[in-house]
Amino acid sequence: MSHALKILPEGRVLKVASGKILSDVLEDAGLRLSLYCGRRGLCGKCIVEIVRGALPSASDEERSLLARRKLPANFRLACRARVEGDMAIRIPLESLLLHMPVLSHGVGRSLTLDPAVKKISLSAQKPDLASPDSLLDFIQRRFPNVELHLSLETLRRFAQNHQLAPAAAEWTAVLYADKELLAIEPGDTTGRDFGIAVDLGTTTVIVELLDLNTGKSLDSTAGLNAQVKYGADVVSRITAAYADPRKLEDLRTAIVGGLNEMVGGLLRRNQVSSDSVYEAVVAGNTAMNHLLLGLPVTTLAVSPYQAVFSVLPALPAVESGLAISPLGRVYIAPNIKSFVGGDISAGLSAVDLEHQKGNFLFVDLGTNGEIVLKRRARFTATSTAAGPAFEGMTISCGMLALPGAVYKAGFKDRLVVETIAGEPARGVCGTGLIDIIAVALDKGFISAQGHILGPAKKIEVTNDLSLNQQDIREVQLAVAAVKTGIRILLAKNKMAVKDLDGIYVAGAFGNYLNIPHSMKLGLLPCIDRKKIFFVGNSSLAGAKALLLSRPERIRCERLANRVRHLSLAKDAEFQTMFIEALEFKAWNS
Amino acid sequence: MSHALKILPEGRVLKVASGKILSDVLEDAGLRLSLYCGRRGLCGKCIVEIVRGALPSASDEERSLLARRKLPANFRLACRARVEGDMAIRIPLESLLLHMPVLSHGVGRSLTLDPAVKKISLSAQKPDLASPDSLLDFIQRRFPNVELHLSLETLRRFAQNHQLAPAAAEWTAVLYADKELLAIEPGDTTGRDFGIAVDLGTTTVIVELLDLNTGKSLDSTAGLNAQVKYGADVVSRITAAYADPRKLEDLRTAIVGGLNEMVGGLLRRNQVSSDSVYEAVVAGNTAMNHLLLGLPVTTLAVSPYQAVFSVLPALPAVESGLAISPLGRVYIAPNIKSFVGGDISAGLSAVDLEHQKGNFLFVDLGTNGEIVLKRRARFTATSTAAGPAFEGMTISCGMLALPGAVYKAGFKDRLVVETIAGEPARGVCGTGLIDIIAVALDKGFISAQGHILGPAKKIEVTNDLSLNQQDIREVQLAVAAVKTGIRILLAKNKMAVKDLDGIYVAGAFGNYLNIPHSMKLGLLPCIDRKKIFFVGNSSLAGAKALLLSRPERIRCERLANRVRHLSLAKDAEFQTMFIEALEFKAWNS
Repeated sequence: MSHALKILPEGRVLKVASGKILSDVLEDAGLRLSLYCGRRGLCGKCIVEIVRGALPSASDEERSLLARRKLPANFRLACRARVEGDMAIRIPLESLLLHMPVLSHGVGRSLTLDPAVKKISLSAQKPDLASPDSLLDFIQRRFPNVELHLSLETLRRFAQNHQLAPAAAEWTAVLYADKELLAIEPGDTTGRDFGIAVDLGTTTVIVELLDLNTGKSLDSTAGLNAQVKYGADVVSRITAAYADPRKLEDLRTAIVGGLNEMVGGLLRRNQVSSDSVYEAVVAGNTAMNHLLLGLPVTTLAVSPYQAVFSVLPALPAVESGLAISPLGRVYIAPNIKSFVGGDISAGLSAVDLEHQKGNFLFVDLGTNGEIVLKRRARFTATSTAAGPAFEGMTISCGMLALPGAVYKAGFKDRLVVETIAGEPARGVCGTGLIDIIAVALDKGFISAQGHILGPAKKIEVTNDLSLNQQDIREVQLAVAAVKTGIRILLAKNKMAVKDLDGIYVAGAFGNYLNIPHSMKLGLLPCIDRKKIFFVGNSSLAGAKALLLSRPERIRCERLANRVRHLSLAKDAEFQTMFIEALEFKAWNS
Repeated sequence: MSHALKILPEGRVLKVASGKILSDVLEDAGLRLSLYCGRRGLCGKCIVEIVRGALPSASDEERSLLARRKLPANFRLACRARVEGDMAIRIPLESLLLHMPVLSHGVGRSLTLDPAVKKISLSAQKPDLASPDSLLDFIQRRFPNVELHLSLETLRRFAQNHQLAPAAAEWTAVLYADKELLAIEPGDTTGRDFGIAVDLGTTTVIVELLDLNTGKSLDSTAGLNAQVKYGADVVSRITAAYADPRKLEDLRTAIVGGLNEMVGGLLRRNQVSSDSVYEAVVAGNTAMNHLLLGLPVTTLAVSPYQAVFSVLPALPAVESGLAISPLGRVYIAPNIKSFVGGDISAGLSAVDLEHQKGNFLFVDLGTNGEIVLKRRARFTATSTAAGPAFEGMTISCGMLALPGAVYKAGFKDRLVVETIAGEPARGVCGTGLIDIIAVALDKGFISAQGHILGPAKKIEVTNDLSLNQQDIREVQLAVAAVKTGIRILLAKNKMAVKDLDGIYVAGAFGNYLNIPHSMKLGLLPCIDRKKIFFVGNSSLAGAKALLLSRPERIRCERLANRVRHLSLAKDAEFQTMFIEALEFKAWNS
C-alpha cells in the first residue's frame, strides 16, 4: 500500500510505501535534513510539521522531546515518524542541513555542517527504587549498539556535577565522532557549542572561534608564532630541537603558551567559557605540527625527511596542553609527506581540489612554498624552501600584511605605493615587494639578474623606506624556489603550462597579488588570468572545514594518503633549474 | 571445483571448494585455531604444515613472517592460505586455541585465551626516499580498515624510541581491543605480555600476575585492603567519603598505594617490568570500585543506593594511578546494581552461571553477603550486610584464613581443632567459626538463640583462644543476613529450596566450609550436598576470566545489564524474617 506525501512549501507530491520512515523518504527525494544525532531521535533537529492527514504515532520519548522544545502537537521527528496515510508536511528551514561557505573570499565552496563534536540533551530518569540503574546508565542506554568510550575524568566530573545537582532534570551528553562520551553537562547546554580553528604558520598564527551550532565564525585573532625567537624559519627551529631535546620542550611550551594566550583572549572577549570548547583543529606544516605536539624532529632533520605521523586520530586536549576543555579533542590536519604538511592537506580540503575536474596547480606561498599538482586523479606534491621573504621577514623594511604595510605599487612618473588601511607607510609586505620589484625591473632600476642599477644601490619606496641589494636577493631566491618547484612538478608529470585548467594561489598574499607583476618575475606561469584563483589563507579555511565537517576530515585523510611526494633535493635537475630561475623572467611556456 | 583436504594428526578428510581460505575451512570443521591477530596475517600464530599436495602461494609479507619464525618452506598461515588443490596438512598443537581453566578448584570451567591486549610484531619498512611515509604509517597500514586510536604519549614514546634506534628492523604493536594502539615497542617483545587480575575485597585484596601468552598464573600476593584504617566495612568508608570529599581522596590514595605496593612486589619478584603489563582487571564490590576510581559515593550513601556506573569501558591506566604501563588499561568488572558489584559479575563469569541449565543460587560470603538467584533465564540479585565476621574481623580472636588459623573443628570428648598449615593456633577464621558454633550448639554449650550457657560465658577453643558472647552475636547477625536474603529471593521468584539445581558458594570460606555445620546453623538451605559447589574466590577467578578473554567480558557486561536487583531494605517482610533467622536453626524447606 502506498500513500501520497505532499511536501510544503515546495508543493511536490511523493508516492510513498506505507510504513516508511519520513526522513528516509525525504532524503531519497533529495532533501537534505539535519540528522544531527544520527537518526537516533535524540536531538530533535529534524522536526517536520504535519499540516494535514494522518498524524504518525509518537513514542513517549519523542513526545517528551517535542514538549521540551515547546512544539505544537502536530510536529514530529522525521527520523522517527512513519508514513501511515496520506499527508501534507511542512519542513521548517532549520530542519534542513546548513551549508557553510569555507573560504572567506576567492573561489567558493560550501560544506554541510556535521562536526565531530555533538551535544545531545537528555532527560534524566527517575531511578527504579528497588533495582536502581547507575547514574551513567540513562546516558548509555540512549545510545544502544554503541560502546561509548569515556575517560575517568569525564565520569568523575559527571558524578561531581550530579552531587551538586542530584535532581537535575536535564543533562547534555557531549559526543565525539558518535562514540566517545566527552562530557555529561548538567542542564541543556546544547546552545553553547564552540570550536577553534588554528592556522599554525611558521611565522604567523591565526586562531578563529566558531559556533558549532551554526558553523559561523564568531571572531578571530592573529599573532606571531611565539617560536620565532628560536629562529625565523622551519630549518633553524628543527635544528635547535634536533641538537638539544630541552629545546624541543622549549619550542613546544612557546607555541602552546602563545596559542593559549590567543585562545584565552578570544574566549574572554566573546564570553565563551573554555569548557564549552570541545575541539580545536590545527592546520600547520609538518614541522610546526611536530613542535606543537613535542614530537622529536630527528627524522625531519635528515634525509629523507620522514614525519613521525601523517594521519592522526584526534588527541585528548589535555595531552596537548591547549586551553580548551580538558575533556575535548585536538585534531591535527594530516601531514601529507615530508614538509608538505597539514596546512596543505587542509588547503586542499578548503578548495576541494580532489573534486575539481581537470589539471590544477595548488601553490601555497608561505615561509615554505608548497606546491601540489593535480593531474586528473593523480596528486604530486613538493615543498621548496622559499624562506620568509613573502611574509616580510628577512627584508630590511619588510613587515606582515598589517595596516601601514605597502601592499601595492605602480608607476606614474615615479613609484606610487598604497598602504593597507591607508595608514602611513611602516614597511613593505609580500605583495608590495613583488610590485616594487616588477616596476623596478620594468623601468630598468634593476637588471633581470637582480642587480640594482645606478649609484644609489637601493630602491626608494617612500622617503623612509627602501629596498637594498640583499632584499632583492631574498626575493630572487624565494621566486626561484617556487618557480623551480612548479617546473619540476610539471616535467615529472609530462605536462606543460597549457595543460593546466587553473592555478590556486594560497598564502599570505591574500588576493592582492598583482598577477601581471608576478608573471613578469616568473613567480607564476603565464596563463589566462581567469584561470588564477586567489584563495587567501586556505590553511585556516581548511582547518575550519575540518572542524565543521567530520566527513570532510575523512576525505582529507584519504587524499593525504594518496598524494605522492617529489623530493626536490633528490632531483638531479633541481640545481640547474634553480640557478636558471634566479633570473627575473616570465615563463616562456 | 573441490579438493580433498586431509587433516593430520587426526586423519579426517574434508571436501573443500577451491579457493577457500584454510582457516575458514578448519573453523567450519570444528577446529578452533588461534586467530590471535583477527585473520590479518600478522601474528603467525595459525601456522600449519603442508605435508603433501599443492603448496598455497604466499605473499612477500607472509614469507617474511614465516622466515622470521625460522619455519621450513612448507609452512603457511592458515588465515592466508587458500586451498588450491588436494593436500594434507598437519596442525601443530600451538596453532590451536588455548583453553584456560578459570577456577583454581571446585567446579571447572575453561575459556579460550583471547585477551583484550595483543602484541603483534611487525617488520619496519625502508622509507621511499622520494616520497617517504611517516614513521607511524607502516604500523597503520598493517591494520587497514581500522582507525587506530592512540594517545599523544604513545606517539611520543614511539618517536623517542625511534630516535634511539632508527634502524630497528622490528617493532611490536600493542593493540587493545583490535582498535587502540597502546604502544609501539622496539624489537620483538611479543614474548613478554602480562596482565594483572585484582580481587579488590573490602577486607582482603589479592593480586595475581598472569602471562597473557599462555593464560597461566605466574604468581599472586594477598594483603589487607589499605583502607581498613578508615573503617572495617563498606558503610563506614562510604560514610567517611560522603561526609568529607578530602576523605574520598584519602581513601583512593590508600587503596591505589596499597595495590601498587602489591603489584610492585609481584613484578619485582617475577622480574617483570611494569612496562610489559598493559592491563589490569579489577573485580571489586560497588563501593570499592568507586573508591578506587575516586568517584563520589553520595548516591551510594542514600536510598536507592545508585552506583555512578555499571558497565564501564576500560580506562587509561594513567588515569587510575595503577602502576602498570601508563599506556595500558584498567578494566573494572561491571557493577550490577547498588551494592551487588563487580566482584559478583566477575563471580558469575567465573562459574559461567548464565550457561548452566536450571535454577541456581550463587552466594558470595564476604564482608557483604551477595546472593544471585538464577531462575531459568531470569536473574535476581541482592546484597545483605553480613559484616566482616566471616573474614575473622569483629571477632575477638578472629583472623583471615592464613597459616595458624583454626579452620576446622569437631568434637571427640572435647572440641578438637585443626589449623591451617598445622601451625600453632593464632586465631579463628570463618570456617572455624561455623564449625565451633555448630559443635557448641550440638553439645548444648550455646542455645539456639545464641546464648552461651554455663558459667564461663565463653567457648574455649584452645588454651589461648576463646569465643565470647559478642562473637556469637556477630556470627548470628551474619548468618541471619544471608539466610534472609536467600529466603526473600526464593519467595519473590515463587520458588522453594527443592526447585534449586544447585548452590554455588563463593568467598573467603574457600572449600573448607563444613556443609552439615553450615546447614545446621541455617547459613545454607538443606539440599543434597552434591548440589553444593564451593568455588572459592570467584571474584578473583572472574577477574582472571575477564583479563584472559575479551568475549567473556562482553558476555559479562550483557549479563550485568540483565540482572534485576531486589532491595531488601524496601522489603516489608525483611525485618520479620531477619529476626526469625537470628535463631540458629536448619531450614525446614
